[in-house]
Amino acid sequence: MSLLEINSFAAGRWVAPDANARMIENAVTGAPLGRAGNDALDVQAMLDYARKTGGPALRALTFHDRARMLKALAAHLGKHKQALYDLSFATGATQADHMIDIDGGIGTMFVFASKGRREMPDAHVYLDGEVEQLSRSATFLGQHIAISLQGVAVHINAFNFPVWGMLEKLAPTLLAGVPAIVKPATATCYVTELAVKIMLDSGILPAGALQLVSGGLGDMLDRLTCQDVVSFTGSAQTAFKLRSAPHILRNSIRFVAEQDSLNASILGPDATPGTPEFELFVKEVHREMTTKAGQKCTAIRRIIAPKAQVDAVIEALIARLTKTVIGDPRADATRMGALVSNSQKRDVLEKAAIIGTEAERVFGDPDNFDVHGASASKGAFLPPMLFHCGNPDAAERVHDTEAFGPVSTVMGYRDLDHAIALANRGEGSLVASVITHDPEVAREVALGAGAFHGRLYFNNRDSMKESTGHGSPLPHMVHGGPGRAGGGEELGGVRGVMHYMQRTAIQGSPDILTAIGSKWVPGAAEKPAPSHPFTRTFHELEIGETIRTEPRKITLADIEQFAAFTGDTFYAHMDDAAAKRNPFFPGRVAHGYLLLSFAAGLFVEPNEGPVLANTGLDNLRFMKPVEAGDSIKVRLTVKHKTPRNEEYGEVRWHVTLTSQQDELVAEYDLLTMNAYAS
Amino acid sequence: MSLLEINSFAAGRWVAPDANARMIENAVTGAPLGRAGNDALDVQAMLDYARKTGGPALRALTFHDRARMLKALAAHLGKHKQALYDLSFATGATQADHMIDIDGGIGTMFVFASKGRREMPDAHVYLDGEVEQLSRSATFLGQHIAISLQGVAVHINAFNFPVWGMLEKLAPTLLAGVPAIVKPATATCYVTELAVKIMLDSGILPAGALQLVSGGLGDMLDRLTCQDVVSFTGSAQTAFKLRSAPHILRNSIRFVAEQDSLNASILGPDATPGTPEFELFVKEVHREMTTKAGQKCTAIRRIIAPKAQVDAVIEALIARLTKTVIGDPRADATRMGALVSNSQKRDVLEKAAIIGTEAERVFGDPDNFDVHGASASKGAFLPPMLFHCGNPDAAERVHDTEAFGPVSTVMGYRDLDHAIALANRGEGSLVASVITHDPEVAREVALGAGAFHGRLYFNNRDSMKESTGHGSPLPHMVHGGPGRAGGGEELGGVRGVMHYMQRTAIQGSPDILTAIGSKWVPGAAEKPAPSHPFTRTFHELEIGETIRTEPRKITLADIEQFAAFTGDTFYAHMDDAAAKRNPFFPGRVAHGYLLLSFAAGLFVEPNEGPVLANTGLDNLRFMKPVEAGDSIKVRLTVKHKTPRNEEYGEVRWHVTLTSQQDELVAEYDLLTMNAYAS
Repeated sequence: MSLLEINSFAAGRWVAPDANARMIENAVTGAPLGRAGNDALDVQAMLDYARKTGGPALRALTFHDRARMLKALAAHLGKHKQALYDLSFATGATQADHMIDIDGGIGTMFVFASKGRREMPDAHVYLDGEVEQLSRSATFLGQHIAISLQGVAVHINAFNFPVWGMLEKLAPTLLAGVPAIVKPATATCYVTELAVKIMLDSGILPAGALQLVSGGLGDMLDRLTCQDVVSFTGSAQTAFKLRSAPHILRNSIRFVAEQDSLNASILGPDATPGTPEFELFVKEVHREMTTKAGQKCTAIRRIIAPKAQVDAVIEALIARLTKTVIGDPRADATRMGALVSNSQKRDVLEKAAIIGTEAERVFGDPDNFDVHGASASKGAFLPPMLFHCGNPDAAERVHDTEAFGPVSTVMGYRDLDHAIALANRGEGSLVASVITHDPEVAREVALGAGAFHGRLYFNNRDSMKESTGHGSPLPHMVHGGPGRAGGGEELGGVRGVMHYMQRTAIQGSPDILTAIGSKWVPGAAEKPAPSHPFTRTFHELEIGETIRTEPRKITLADIEQFAAFTGDTFYAHMDDAAAKRNPFFPGRVAHGYLLLSFAAGLFVEPNEGPVLANTGLDNLRFMKPVEAGDSIKVRLTVKHKTPRNEEYGEVRWHVTLTSQQDELVAEYDLLTMNAYAS
Repeated sequence: MSLLEINSFAAGRWVAPDANARMIENAVTGAPLGRAGNDALDVQAMLDYARKTGGPALRALTFHDRARMLKALAAHLGKHKQALYDLSFATGATQADHMIDIDGGIGTMFVFASKGRREMPDAHVYLDGEVEQLSRSATFLGQHIAISLQGVAVHINAFNFPVWGMLEKLAPTLLAGVPAIVKPATATCYVTELAVKIMLDSGILPAGALQLVSGGLGDMLDRLTCQDVVSFTGSAQTAFKLRSAPHILRNSIRFVAEQDSLNASILGPDATPGTPEFELFVKEVHREMTTKAGQKCTAIRRIIAPKAQVDAVIEALIARLTKTVIGDPRADATRMGALVSNSQKRDVLEKAAIIGTEAERVFGDPDNFDVHGASASKGAFLPPMLFHCGNPDAAERVHDTEAFGPVSTVMGYRDLDHAIALANRGEGSLVASVITHDPEVAREVALGAGAFHGRLYFNNRDSMKESTGHGSPLPHMVHGGPGRAGGGEELGGVRGVMHYMQRTAIQGSPDILTAIGSKWVPGAAEKPAPSHPFTRTFHELEIGETIRTEPRKITLADIEQFAAFTGDTFYAHMDDAAAKRNPFFPGRVAHGYLLLSFAAGLFVEPNEGPVLANTGLDNLRFMKPVEAGDSIKVRLTVKHKTPRNEEYGEVRWHVTLTSQQDELVAEYDLLTMNAYAS
């Protein structure tokens, strides 16, 4: 079989490896597989292409445009995933591993596509939080916004997930409107290269949005500015080298790091053998040890069990590990494939030996294990290796040595505080899990250990059917952790998009905030509606368009009738003396729901028109009680518009009810669905 | 006058300066003022005291407890502010400057106290964002939380605001439940020392919550862990030195930096001479040049005006600068005091000379200016110096040289894109301002320049009466900026508190999330209420307490009556054919407000009791239309409780309306105020 030539994609063209390219091996056979790397790559041209071509094209799109682009991209990758599976076996990964890497990566992109449509506006400015009232009369206000960085994101990825590792960073980057230069780890860069090729060939992305470096980055990082972001996944050693570069530090260049992690899993004190939780714990630990041959940044490295259960845990794990078939990842029976390379295998053995100085190996002999359908000596195979550390308090290495393979250490705890202390000995991790059915145990761990772990995963009989696994970072949830884990954050829905945007505090008048945020701010200009706004289509309606209604008087008969009709005979509406005793009311007052209902009666246009439905209401606050004899009038203003599908979009109206003295009685956001066509 | 002995407060006791202490000068007279620094300070004991005594005591308090503590502390400082004013004149600051530093610092603490009560729960866990639905049947969910770091915050502060600079970091730190070690810049540390003394003497803070280093930190930063935070304000050079320490980088220790900044102010193209905006612009620039003798990290260093207005701007500024009285800061007539020290004065002159290589000085001769009531040669006085740069595109130094004194450079722009490009030449700043009455100008600047500036300040005739000034960081708004400004963020309300907390992604069952967040999550256990929940006081009510009502049938007569009564005759309720044409409805349906009103009728307990008022409603969504003949029933569950004052607190109820087929019809949060006593 001829060697693969793994190309880079730089400044609009594919660049082949050169004479100094690095050789890549097939993980299963140890044979040469391909070559990657070109020392003559013009990194400045790549940066220019991203900044001058990719960035402006992406920033011209709205969040919804970019979300639709992501959806199309994910769908296109989905159509070509068989080719990615086929190629990925050479990394040592099984079909089950591919589901995590390839399907997981595509799924992540779909989630960002969906969140971009549902949680972000069809605009270029994202509003972060609410308007801040900075002055008494509200002529001077504050609003935080996020806008696209004008630079490029450089993604430096790990070898273990050549597809997911790229897509989990690429999706939020593109959604933010920022172009990316992807640099996969060389060992598995051929899979990333194919995924990039599929995406570029789709024609979905604007030119300059995505480039690829197979091989080294040269001096690219020394050419970055405050508008660029480095997002790194890999070893603590490499992270330290890159992030300590004076150019990075002097220019405060964003550096997101996701590095080593000694993730722990705690068996709850309640989860004794025979409970569903005990079995679940053993299952989760076994899965984390063997999936991807343990080459997962989130894999369980430390198994923390009550002292009394340590033997039972070891026994149950050994029973499962014994049955784990290791071998050719293409074979159906195989449960665990090869490590990514023989060099990685050597590294894991070195680290396991270090752990072995403080813990006893109770399962897995790397010199004597069965490999099915492949050569144990040529391929990068290892058996799962389980250690037991009898004195975890005195130990150091079991808490700081990450053997990035199928290696884990069991240790016993005395009480929950001890378990928390042991989990925190990792000095910062990506994830810790607790298998418990006791919510109080969960709460104690959250308070005691939360500050040391980027994610806390709880599981038990209630959630186990639907839970996604200790080791699965989900696009909705933040992935990353403090300290040893690198201090970075990725994913987490819109939070992940923010890593590629600048948060800026805006201060100004209501009109200025309205113009910047495309969302009407109280106090901003009201545009008179040319006709009743309910007669105008989604697209005809303008932000700020307003109607003000005639007043309606509320009578005691109204209150009585409303109470009788609805059954709401709460004392504040019915009993003058009781209402007077209440700190809020001067006497009997109208029902809040009566006011809302009368308000609708005042502003609704009854005839069939583009308003399809009132779908909801937000932030309703009753400010001032209304007594019999008072009157209310309504102001209704178009606050914000969000397209929802091909036919209609959501209109958010700002509504105020005021009294005959023009005092604010109630305020809320009303939501309607409005048709594009009338 | 005897020299001040400026102490540190370390591990519970005051420590005097030692033989190697640094001499501090009086800025106004140049005479020796005091001594600070003790090389034998036991920094490990300080860290231990904070971590083992201060941290646990603060973490035992809820956010509301800590907010009340901040309020008391701010009030106590307010009572002693005259002593702080008196001492502060020696820093060269005027009474107007004291208002920014001392009153501004106290005001910042009050705002955090208020935000802690209004925007954070009376609990130990802060919920960041909404519950994430991670599974189809919602038995496995996600929620981001923030919890207190278990370490210490080391605050390294700048000389210019010895009180505000401390309090703006201390308030969010304490609110987060984290102890602080404050290290003020030596030049003005005597003012900080007094403020710390006042706070400690108040007895309001738990032991270990606050310590002070007057002088150097020794090797304290090399003893930090992933649970600690360094928050630095000062020069880019010092920031680089500190943040590049291998110990900081290897352990991913949080390092928040706020350093140099070449802040710009843009005169809008619309703001021609004669407009209120032109005059406002000149006023703001003059204020930023002279307040605190220009020693403000947010001061305007670059004045960007339309080419046609450059001469008019210079002329108007000179007119104001000429009238600026420089002299003894204690004198009423003085508008600008001294710089903090003669060494700072020399530094400003050096930087001004560098700017002078690219720009012409059009006002202010440092060798020839009037100083009233003090010695121009002995005190650290300088005149305001205005430069004009004729070719800002070719210039480099005017965009990267911060003369930290009363120095600013005027430059002309061709069009708005050019103005934006010039503003962005600062390569990251804390704040840029735009004086314009045109919202479209504001929007263009936000999109073009927002990514380079931590804050954008807009002002015009509408907001100028209430605006707070280009140079005023407000506790509500983020303070910090990308690139040259250090890449850090401070303040910004709750955002600022998060810098001292860990965000952790929690995954688990509804019961587990409810226990951790003290907020009921749909799907979690419902506790049967011992009596109707409206008869139970705030404190009696438990999270999860639930009632379910009998069903009520909705008739066509109900719909007709509701329409006639309220006037809401929207076609979906009145016209079967029109409703059928609508994509949402099967035919005529009940009003949403009818459903809400009937729901209240179903769950309300009419008799006088601890429920004082329905104050609002959040997140109402109508899921399924209700036709005549359908029935609805209600589930009402205690979701969350927040004390509001000494008498009552807010109860947030989760409400669902379901149909006779148990389909979800509507869902919302209901807010009531409930008395503590019945």
